[in-house]
Amino acid sequence: MGFEQRKAEALRRLKRDLKEGKVDLKVLEILNLINSIPDFYSLSSCSGRICLLKFDKTFKKGEKKFVFKKHEKVRTPEIWEKLKELEGKEKNVMFVMEGAILHISSKNLSRALDFLKKVRNLGFKRGGIISIRKYEVIMEIESTEKVCVPVILDSKLVITKKFLDQLVEISNLLLERTWKKLEKLGEYLESLK
Amino acid sequence: MGFEQRKAEALRRLKRDLKEGKVDLKVLEILNLINSIPDFYSLSSCSGRICLLKFDKTFKKGEKKFVFKKHEKVRTPEIWEKLKELEGKEKNVMFVMEGAILHISSKNLSRALDFLKKVRNLGFKRGGIISIRKYEVIMEIESTEKVCVPVILDSKLVITKKFLDQLVEISNLLLERTWKKLEKLGEYLESLK
Repeated sequence: MGFEQRKAEALRRLKRDLKEGKVDLKVLEILNLINSIPDFYSLSSCSGRICLLKFDKTFKKGEKKFVFKKHEKVRTPEIWEKLKELEGKEKNVMFVMEGAILHISSKNLSRALDFLKKVRNLGFKRGGIISIRKYEVIMEIESTEKVCVPVILDSKLVITKKFLDQLVEISNLLLERTWKKLEKLGEYLESLK
Repeated sequence: MGFEQRKAEALRRLKRDLKEGKVDLKVLEILNLINSIPDFYSLSSCSGRICLLKFDKTFKKGEKKFVFKKHEKVRTPEIWEKLKELEGKEKNVMFVMEGAILHISSKNLSRALDFLKKVRNLGFKRGGIISIRKYEVIMEIESTEKVCVPVILDSKLVITKKFLDQLVEISNLLLERTWKKLEKLGEYLESLK
């Protein structure tokens, strides 16, 4: 299957996921821009998120699971309520904020390398080419915003509401920061059309 | 400058950095294994670390600076003492645990792609080819362990010693986990020699 066919398939998948509410709408504008460039198409991407993750202290594979996830700013009460609900039920929970992460396919290696170089300067410091298939080069680009705090340990809430408030404030600021990077990425993508 | 010359230069740099105590000794065995493979050589790498980072709430560029860094397990008292010392002096400080990150140059693109695919299964989930120059392919591989907690905000310590103890316990467990991945990586590199 050539690049054009793969792209058509990816666009169909995106349309279906959109219908099913599976697409992070904050990143949709960027995905549309990527897909408007003939040599590129978008794969799974996220505009940044704030979530609560179950984890096992042995950190065995497959133990990580979301118990809360939002691609928007959060308010302390909604997280606090959720944590109160989880206390006693879940063994270990982590509060996590992560910056934007995008997967993009390029038809062309040198164009992918140029793109990676450029977006590094826009703040997508991590990532690279993660695979090359016959007709396409798959890139992952990632912004570095991160908050990652254990909040329930051995079924007990280990933070105060005041501290959660501070985590929420910082995480919301970092979401804004990652969104600004997405805006700049959007402007750059416009210039490639 | 061809691959062999670049490799010779990188080895000289590594030797100099070793003399100056700039190399994370926990990762040295892996670097030596990488350098024993004719088509590969090592670039800046880290076996995982626990650190304290200054940060600015505006998250302006260049504001991140280490005030503590160790590539080994830490004990609560040493971090607590450091935090007490920093309280009132530093505006914002983050407690950070990060997994291993390695940069490797390969002479050959398809060998680099094979390597990336293989090490993803060993737990180096993030990373890829970050640049391609005439004679070499530069890869970054990263393990995903992470703890990232604001501990001083507006010059005030915002966590208890008990909570720090819990952060230290988890961070030390995660260091062990990243070291196990490095061991597996070592075995794989042995098989490539």
